[in-house]
Parts: sequence; C-alpha cells; structure tokens
Amino acid sequence: MRERIKEANRVALRRLLDAEPVLISVAQARDVVPGMGERMILHAGPPIEWERMCPPMRHGIIGGVLYEGWARTPDEVDRLVESGEVVLSPCHENSAVGSMAGITTPSMWMYEVEERSRGGRAYCGVYEGRGKTLAFGCFEQGTIDRLRWMETVLGPRLKQALAVLENGLPLKPIIAKALQMGDECHNRYVASTLWYMNELVRALLSDDVPSSEVEIVLRFMTDGHYNSFLTLSMAGCKAISDAAHGVAYSTLVTAMARNGTEFGIRVSGLGDQWFTAPAQMIQGLYFPGHDESEANPDIGDSSITETVGLGAFALVGAPVTMQVIGKGLDEALRIEQEMSEITMGRNEMFTLPYLDSRGTPVGIDIRKVVETNITPVCVTAMASTAPNVGMIGAGVVRQPVACFQDALKAFANQHRDRQA
Amino acid sequence: MRERIKEANRVALRRLLDAEPVLISVAQARDVVPGMGERMILHAGPPIEWERMCPPMRHGIIGGVLYEGWARTPDEVDRLVESGEVVLSPCHENSAVGSMAGITTPSMWMYEVEERSRGGRAYCGVYEGRGKTLAFGCFEQGTIDRLRWMETVLGPRLKQALAVLENGLPLKPIIAKALQMGDECHNRYVASTLWYMNELVRALLSDDVPSSEVEIVLRFMTDGHYNSFLTLSMAGCKAISDAAHGVAYSTLVTAMARNGTEFGIRVSGLGDQWFTAPAQMIQGLYFPGHDESEANPDIGDSSITETVGLGAFALVGAPVTMQVIGKGLDEALRIEQEMSEITMGRNEMFTLPYLDSRGTPVGIDIRKVVETNITPVCVTAMASTAPNVGMIGAGVVRQPVACFQDALKAFANQHRDRQA
Repeated sequence: MRERIKEANRVALRRLLDAEPVLISVAQARDVVPGMGERMILHAGPPIEWERMCPPMRHGIIGGVLYEGWARTPDEVDRLVESGEVVLSPCHENSAVGSMAGITTPSMWMYEVEERSRGGRAYCGVYEGRGKTLAFGCFEQGTIDRLRWMETVLGPRLKQALAVLENGLPLKPIIAKALQMGDECHNRYVASTLWYMNELVRALLSDDVPSSEVEIVLRFMTDGHYNSFLTLSMAGCKAISDAAHGVAYSTLVTAMARNGTEFGIRVSGLGDQWFTAPAQMIQGLYFPGHDESEANPDIGDSSITETVGLGAFALVGAPVTMQVIGKGLDEALRIEQEMSEITMGRNEMFTLPYLDSRGTPVGIDIRKVVETNITPVCVTAMASTAPNVGMIGAGVVRQPVACFQDALKAFANQHRDRQA
Repeated sequence: MRERIKEANRVALRRLLDAEPVLISVAQARDVVPGMGERMILHAGPPIEWERMCPPMRHGIIGGVLYEGWARTPDEVDRLVESGEVVLSPCHENSAVGSMAGITTPSMWMYEVEERSRGGRAYCGVYEGRGKTLAFGCFEQGTIDRLRWMETVLGPRLKQALAVLENGLPLKPIIAKALQMGDECHNRYVASTLWYMNELVRALLSDDVPSSEVEIVLRFMTDGHYNSFLTLSMAGCKAISDAAHGVAYSTLVTAMARNGTEFGIRVSGLGDQWFTAPAQMIQGLYFPGHDESEANPDIGDSSITETVGLGAFALVGAPVTMQVIGKGLDEALRIEQEMSEITMGRNEMFTLPYLDSRGTPVGIDIRKVVETNITPVCVTAMASTAPNVGMIGAGVVRQPVACFQDALKAFANQHRDRQA
C-alpha cells in the first residue's frame, strides 16, 4: 500500500511538473466554459449555498446579475437565485478559477489555457483592474460599465492579438522569468505583466491594429497597477494542477480554494470531492482607513498558485511583496522551509533566485500536512465585507488543518473499503 | 583641513544623491554634444593616443570612419587619424559617455539627459543592440548598415516619442524599480528595459505613429536582448556624477572609465585631471568558443554606473547577473561589504531588496581606497581583441589602486601648495 501511494504520488507530481500551460485564446464564457449555463454564475472556492455565502461573494453575484441584465436592481437578485432562475456553481467544477469572489458570468471574456502534455483546458476571466471590481464585491454603475467595456472593446482586441500568436503564449517561461524579477506570482505580478504586455502589444502591432486602440488596451491592462497577469497565471496554474488530478492512490493536493466562508481542498486520488474547513482571517497590512473589523475571511481561487508552488511558496524571491504584506525575509525563509516539509518535491522551472536557484517547494501531500501539523500558507488580498469598497489590504493566511485531516480519513476509508 | 574635506565631501555626496537625471530628447551628436567637431570621434575612457589604443577601440574607430563616409576602406583610417583630419577625444571630456569602445560620431543619435537639481546635461548614444556592434570593435557591412538604419529610422522615431513626454522621462524611478527586480543596472537591464519600452511604446502610440512603425522600434530595442536601457542609464549616471564634480577639497570619485588600455578616475576636487593605471583583465565566464587569450582588458565608460553605486555595488540584488558572471551570493555580499568600506554613504533611492532595503554603497572616497587598499569592483562585458567578433563574455574586474594613490598625492600637493 505504501509503495502504491509512493508510485501514485511520483506519477502525479511528474504530471504536475511536466504540465505545459499555453494561452491559446480568449472567448466569452458561454462559448467555452464547459457546463456554463445560460443563466449561470460561477464563484470561487468549494460549493456553497447562497444563504451561507460571505458578503463580498453575494455582492459580486448581485453585480454579475446586474451586468448580465437579468435584474434591474439588487433587490431582485435574492428571488432569482432562490428560485433557481440563476444557477450558482463553483468555478473549479467548471474547469475554471476566479479571483477573489470569482464571479464569472456567461458574457465575460475568459483566458483559455491549453495544457499540452495531457490535453486539458482551464479558464479564468480577464483581469478587471484595480478599484471597485466585481471580484471584490462591488456592483455600482462604474463596475458594470467597466465590465461592459471589457466585453465589447477589450475582449475582441485580446482575441485578435492571440490569434496572431499562432502557437499560443506559453505561460511557464513568463512565470519562470518573473520569479527571477521579484514576483512571487500570487500577490505581485509586476514583471510577469510587463512580459505579458510586451507579447500582447507586439501581437497587436504586427496585426496592424491602429495605434490608438493598442494604446487603450495597454493602458487598461496596466494603469494604476501592473497586475493583469494574475488571472492568466491562475488559469495556467489550474491547467497545471488539473494535469495532476485523478491519479488513484495519490495524496497530492490538486486544488486549494476559498469561497470566503470555507477553505477547501481536492486531492488527486479522491476524485471531485471537496474537504472543507472554515476560511481563516488574513494577517497582514490594511490600506489606510481600513482594519480587521471590516475584513472578510480568506476568499478566492487564487490559492491555485500556491497549489503549484507559487505565491507564499515563492515569497522568499519577492522582497517587495514582503514589504506589502509586512513580513520580513526571516519569515519568508521560514515559510519556504515549512512548505518544503509538506511537499513532495521541488519545481524544476520555478526557482528561488536567492536560494541557489533551487525550485520552489511543490506538491502538497495531505499525509505530510497531517503528520507535521504544518498547513499551507497563502499570500492574498483582503476584501471588505461592505459592498462597493474593493481591496482593503494584503497579507498571508495559514490554512486550517481540519480539511487535510478529513481528506486523509477519506483516503484511508476508501482504500480500506477497496482492500476489504 | 580635515574639516574642510569633510564638509566638501558632504556637499559633493549631497549633490550626487540629489541629482535628478531626466531624459528630455534624442538628437544627433553634431547638434548637441558640446565640443563635437565636424570630423571628430569620441571614445571611452581617459585620453589616449591612436597608437596606444587597444584593438577593439581601433576597430571601432575604423567602423566610425566608414559609417561617416570619411574613408572607403579600413586602410585609410590610419592616415586620417595620424594627420589629424579625424580628431579623437574622450567622451567624458565632451559631457558624454560611451559603452565599451564608446565610439561616438557626429551622425549618431544621442540620449540627452538633463540634470534638474543643478542644470547639467549628459549624453550617451542609443544602444546598438547585440551582435556585431561598433561598441565591441566591429566594422563590417552589417554593423554599418545597422548604424545607418538607426540614424534614419530609429532616431527620428525616438525623437518623436520623447517629444510626447512633455516633462521628459525621469530616470531614477526606473532604476529604483529595476533594482527591486533583479537588475543591478550595469550588466543586467532587463526590468529597466521593459519599463523603458513601456513608456516609449505608450508615447509612440499616443502620437498615432502607425502600428507597423511602433513595432519596428520595439523589436529593434528588445530582440535578442533586453538591454537597451544600458546607454540611457549611462547618460543618467554621467549626469548624476557630474552634478557632484567640481567641489573644491572633495575627495569623491566622479568618474571611473576605461579605454581598454588604461583605467582612469576623476575626482570632484581635482578638476578635469585624469589619474590612470593599466586596465585590468576581467574575471568571469566566456561564451562558448572564446577564452582569455582573445580577451581585451577592461574597457568602456559604463563604470560610471559603479561611480554612482550601481553595477557591482548593487550586485547582491541581481541573482541572474551572478549566474551570468559566475559569482555566488557570498561573493556579491562580500563586494557590497567591501564597497561600503570605501564609500561615503548609502543611496537613498537605489536600494538593496535583500539587505533590509538599505541603499547601495555610494560615493567612492580616494582616501578610503588608499587607506584600505580596497579598490572598486565593476561588473562588465568582455570584448574580443579580434575585429568583428563582438561580446565574448562577462565578469567582474577589480580596479587598480595606483591611480587612487596618484590622485591622493595630487590632492595633497594641491592643498599643500595652497596652504603654503
């Protein structure tokens, strides 16, 4: 049995490391996301009912309904959802991931990532930018107007640009380079966004898109932030981890996701089952005028980045992130050390520039988490529980152990049954 | 006397730290570089006669003459130079700096940097790209063709872009950001070039330059390298160090430059006098097929970056550079420690991300160099002594102490005379 698990984990980790996510196109969710219904909204994290959803997720769903024009006022949303006229479903159960509340509606443009070693696909919406975004539970007119602009102006231009890149845009080389340039690729995406823009702008220019329109795209995707690569990275990481999913007897974690109420994981050898525990509060720095009284617990699918060894697992390579979240190099080193105790190996391509270019720790093993009582750490943004506020800070969160314990019990039960 | 020197150094260092280099335009050397004659070629390093010039510099001058059309064949160049028909002069004596051989001719486009705290100007030629460049002593047809293309196509477009940026492009913020992203800003300019391209492309787009022409500019300035910021950085550093030059009684080094035969320094309180010693060999890694038998000693004005606390002084923030030159983190830390022993202070804006964001050591003091016998270290590229080869490797070079000793003697003599 131990040998069987060992071999399964070897296979699963190999698949994770060999995965080759390539951005091939963008398309509206209704046209590409498998399972996306006509009146469906996807959300972050493990499954959760409307009544138990946290405020930023409910606010985001209100925004999604208003954006799609299924209702005219926020008051109508309750009825639409409760009656089942609008169906809610986790991104992860539809080959997708979503930032923060993860709100994804049929009209939104999605990055379409192909995983070339095994042939999977993964999706994530185009980054909304900073400020009052749906992802952070905003639904005011400006939020809706921006989404509409993205739908009608930005999306088609991105599609045009990606059509120029005939073999698509491989994502691992961008992430690998960015890790040498101070991104940890969860909280900070400055270098990766610059590389991505470099590719995108060239593609648009070479397709003779008028200068003024290229400028509009470039401006939207960088002004006030250099973070646009976030959701593309997430789609890439989802493609990577999905490649490692479904290996019988493997104890590898293939998804970590939070819906703002619960944190949940999936395990390679345990099918599509979720194991959940309460979402934790984030330790970090608040923007001026905000504090923990307003903060929602940990939310979003972006922890898919830690699932493949980025984010907090690569924090030691990202000094500016350490400053943003108020953590020192000593803490980053400690996290790296701890994560190496609960993982199966090291990334070969995602390396830590200051630790002799060794790979980031990768491949979380539920057995090691339970044995050591060390749980994964994620770097993440903080959302407000109030509507129409947006991001209020950033920090790190230590995930709860209970869901790893439950997963290990389920794993033991499953194999006891089989062996019986 | 000691108090007088202390106060002079305080003033000189303050001027260096307060300098605000801003790229304001590009122009052909004949139109802006003070002292540029009709048939003049500028070169790197301290002054040197044609006969004593190293091979890459002679080869570069041949290329410069051919490019300007002052001769048709390399054979004629000797006579033109020896007869004085073509005049040679150091870049540094004409408010300019030049990469490697530093060859600068009247038709070349120069970055024009304004120093806004004291009003100086500094110049450096637009980066030629990789491969067989004049800077590395090439003069074949492809080299000349590229220069001609830069003259007629690239230069005017850069001028147009910079005209859009009404207040110019401040260089210190770009350098400061790049230092957090793995550039040390002498050998590696990847992050800074991405930032620079981001500004340049936006400017061109907003001025409605046709897409195809923006693409041509972007492609030239990044393809096969991301190094274009090098010569712009050099102009910025020259502007910074010139701001600190000319403070009576100051022992601050305001220029370090190499002509490939000699290394030379200038000192703030010692006017325009050069103090020289033989140029040293570079310790580092050669590209495949090349070795030290072919290498020229240390060459170029790019050590102006170390003069203001970049390059080797910031190596500890640049893990990829360490790999490129074959040095470990321990060595980078040792260099940082050593350079702090021969400098007057720390940069306030150029900081080391992994050393608690303390500033890079800055303000080399000839007294400290002589006292400690520690000389400045530079990271640099290696040029071949053979013509038309180009870059053959990169490494670090330890500068000779003799010129610092000579400068200190001159300083003592000067002030003895004055006091007498």
